[in-house]
Amino acid sequence: MKAQLGTDEGKHKFVLKTPKGTRDFGPKEMAIRERAFKAIISCFKRHGAEVIDTPVFELKETLTGKYGEDSKLIYDLKDQGGELLSLRYDLTVPFARYLAMNKITNIKRYHIAKVYRRDNPAMTRGRYREFYQCDFDIAGQFDPMIPDAECLKIVHEILSDLQLGDFVIKVNDRRILDGMFAVCGVPDSKFRTICSSVDKLDKVPWEEVRSEMVGEKGLSPEAADRIGEYVQLHGGLDLIEQLLQDPKLSQNKVAKEGLGDMKLLFEYLTLFGITGKISFDLSLARGLDYYTGVIFEAVLLQQENEHVEEPLSVGSVAGGGRYDGLVGMFDAKGRKVPCVGVSIGIERIFSILEQRLEASEEKVRTTETQVLVASAQKKLLEERLKLISELWDAGIKAEMLYRKNPKLLNQLQYCEETGIPLVAIVGEQELKDGVVKLRIVATREEVNVRRESLVEEIRIRTSQC
Amino acid sequence: MKAQLGTDEGKHKFVLKTPKGTRDFGPKEMAIRERAFKAIISCFKRHGAEVIDTPVFELKETLTGKYGEDSKLIYDLKDQGGELLSLRYDLTVPFARYLAMNKITNIKRYHIAKVYRRDNPAMTRGRYREFYQCDFDIAGQFDPMIPDAECLKIVHEILSDLQLGDFVIKVNDRRILDGMFAVCGVPDSKFRTICSSVDKLDKVPWEEVRSEMVGEKGLSPEAADRIGEYVQLHGGLDLIEQLLQDPKLSQNKVAKEGLGDMKLLFEYLTLFGITGKISFDLSLARGLDYYTGVIFEAVLLQQENEHVEEPLSVGSVAGGGRYDGLVGMFDAKGRKVPCVGVSIGIERIFSILEQRLEASEEKVRTTETQVLVASAQKKLLEERLKLISELWDAGIKAEMLYRKNPKLLNQLQYCEETGIPLVAIVGEQELKDGVVKLRIVATREEVNVRRESLVEEIRIRTSQC
Repeated sequence: MKAQLGTDEGKHKFVLKTPKGTRDFGPKEMAIRERAFKAIISCFKRHGAEVIDTPVFELKETLTGKYGEDSKLIYDLKDQGGELLSLRYDLTVPFARYLAMNKITNIKRYHIAKVYRRDNPAMTRGRYREFYQCDFDIAGQFDPMIPDAECLKIVHEILSDLQLGDFVIKVNDRRILDGMFAVCGVPDSKFRTICSSVDKLDKVPWEEVRSEMVGEKGLSPEAADRIGEYVQLHGGLDLIEQLLQDPKLSQNKVAKEGLGDMKLLFEYLTLFGITGKISFDLSLARGLDYYTGVIFEAVLLQQENEHVEEPLSVGSVAGGGRYDGLVGMFDAKGRKVPCVGVSIGIERIFSILEQRLEASEEKVRTTETQVLVASAQKKLLEERLKLISELWDAGIKAEMLYRKNPKLLNQLQYCEETGIPLVAIVGEQELKDGVVKLRIVATREEVNVRRESLVEEIRIRTSQC
Repeated sequence: MKAQLGTDEGKHKFVLKTPKGTRDFGPKEMAIRERAFKAIISCFKRHGAEVIDTPVFELKETLTGKYGEDSKLIYDLKDQGGELLSLRYDLTVPFARYLAMNKITNIKRYHIAKVYRRDNPAMTRGRYREFYQCDFDIAGQFDPMIPDAECLKIVHEILSDLQLGDFVIKVNDRRILDGMFAVCGVPDSKFRTICSSVDKLDKVPWEEVRSEMVGEKGLSPEAADRIGEYVQLHGGLDLIEQLLQDPKLSQNKVAKEGLGDMKLLFEYLTLFGITGKISFDLSLARGLDYYTGVIFEAVLLQQENEHVEEPLSVGSVAGGGRYDGLVGMFDAKGRKVPCVGVSIGIERIFSILEQRLEASEEKVRTTETQVLVASAQKKLLEERLKLISELWDAGIKAEMLYRKNPKLLNQLQYCEETGIPLVAIVGEQELKDGVVKLRIVATREEVNVRRESLVEEIRIRTSQC
């Protein structure tokens, strides 16, 4: 029979690993992950979002031409006959496809799912090839900057709620960037590629970015230097006002539009009381092709784990922006649906929460079991099965050891290890008396409870846990 | 700018669809899906399970040789350099890989995630190429049939809880099947392929299966006929006793072992009070290669939607079994970890719940918003933003229309459409008086609430919703 199963023949050596850039989540990691998801989902619901889900792969052509230079990182499926498919690279393009396909012009939805990028993984810093995105988007034709402001409010709420330490949300606008490129003398055809270079400024110094612009991308040194002056600017309403007076920028139509909207955005953010954490930053570019207006990115300012020798750069934990043209790319008549959205980069947040938990030595329970059904003597398996079945049917979370005659000590030990707070012990005498002995693990106290009151007693005693 | 985005150039015609055999879940479908998941997860937690997650793809060789004839249905990823990967086909093989890789010999876990099969989709009957599985498994060396019985109890609890109508859980054992094949004269080398044929008996009549065995698979007609006699048997403890006396079967060692354990299983199921829905059925085979002991499958007995003209066959909604050899296949030294588990086939259950909901005309809310922040006059956007921000910060689920000056009628209509129960209306007079007008949508009642009591008032009024 073994031979038939192919188990032992050949003694094939398996490589026991998950694919490069991916990982398993064990029970402890899942407990942390679910805690973070809960905070994020409750924020999305607080803002009235519906939820949708889309397939993990899309037709390859659905993703084509949406990600600029990053398209090379898309995972394709093998051609096994039939359609050509790719794994989704983000949740935004599938969302736009969903809107166009169903002719939806108005929705506020969240979507939490895994996306796939054939990037160089840096797993200790929470960068994976398979990772979760938590997206919230508002689609529809609305008055300017109201949905945009709400997206920033959401980032602020989630990062505050998760207590990840101090953070700043950098904000810019593609129109301001495009206007800036124009007045600096960048030719139209180079806007996107120069934008990709600017996008690297959070990781590499200006000199390197400049040499990429001039060397690889053929920009004139003068234009690069003009860009260099702008991209070091960051501030608040004052900077917006200053740039609205800037002799060159103020003459550029799209830049002026972008600056006007940025001013409006800051007014709304003031009403939300969150401008303290917002920085208008001309170096923020964001790589993806589809953004058309406001863009933003939240960055953690310091590592919580201060005893780590080299402070770990966790970088961006959320980002997003406005993409008014993307849905139209899927519509035969090019009908546009303006959209703005935010994506929470949850893997980096997991890394931080995991490190913190490890440092704190807090014990995380990975089950919710309320009671272990145990026996003090042998030959009571049938009685344990009967009792646990009653408890399950009453909605009590209960476990038992899968042994005919487990030792009481082993049963108590199991509770200690897994954090089960109560033990319901059946024994000959108790069965005769119609009671169950209920033991409180923490205090070692034991009380006899009448069988018909057991469910109620367990509920009361675990309601505070 | 449009040209740069690639929006209008080329006028490329996109095929607007999801890949074959997949679908989107819109907000309404998600509401149903989350309801079903909630019932299933709460059952898994009631039985003390931890939760894990694994990547959506595995190394191709991890999946090789585990699924028998079904292996051709595995989705492979394109070779883009690096490892050869395949999408997971089920959650069981990744679980076994996880156990072997982490040297875990003892765990009770659930895992809810999508799996992928390049099968012929039949989407109206809930058969997809991308679909959710909800798996619960118990791994570890335990006394016989105790974890196996718990798996069946779990299927019983979930199907009862979801109120899907009458069902039966068919049970058999690979050892009984193998013994039966042996005493019927099937050569050892044909056990697996003949087992695959028997597995089709729930879809095609015996004559067809017989002609496959004899014609395609070269079994002698006599052996096939002997199998034909056994596979029509089904019953309970009485049938087990009868087969234990069967002159041929009782002489076969593995069959006898299987029948002995089946008897024990029925004793435990009697203690759980669920034998009424269990049928020991010799025609149940289950296709997958890795099963070694008990196997089972739950089938809905009748279509709930009785007014449908042709009663829709929904078939199997849950299945599982014991696979004691699978983990050992991943271990260099072949160390085994006995496992038993159940998989809930949730897509078919969704189909039924969706049809039922459509028939009932029950209105499903797709958000949880408690209150809409509205204004009765123009020029109150700032006041609405301030108020909604206060509500969000206090944890109230609140929305507003993204308009500078929305009409009150439109705002009230939005509440009717989306089921928001309360409207907080700001107006000039209310602002002066330090109150907010709270309107109860259902009754059209309006009360003035002091601003500082608004949060509390909303909580009280929506606590019953």
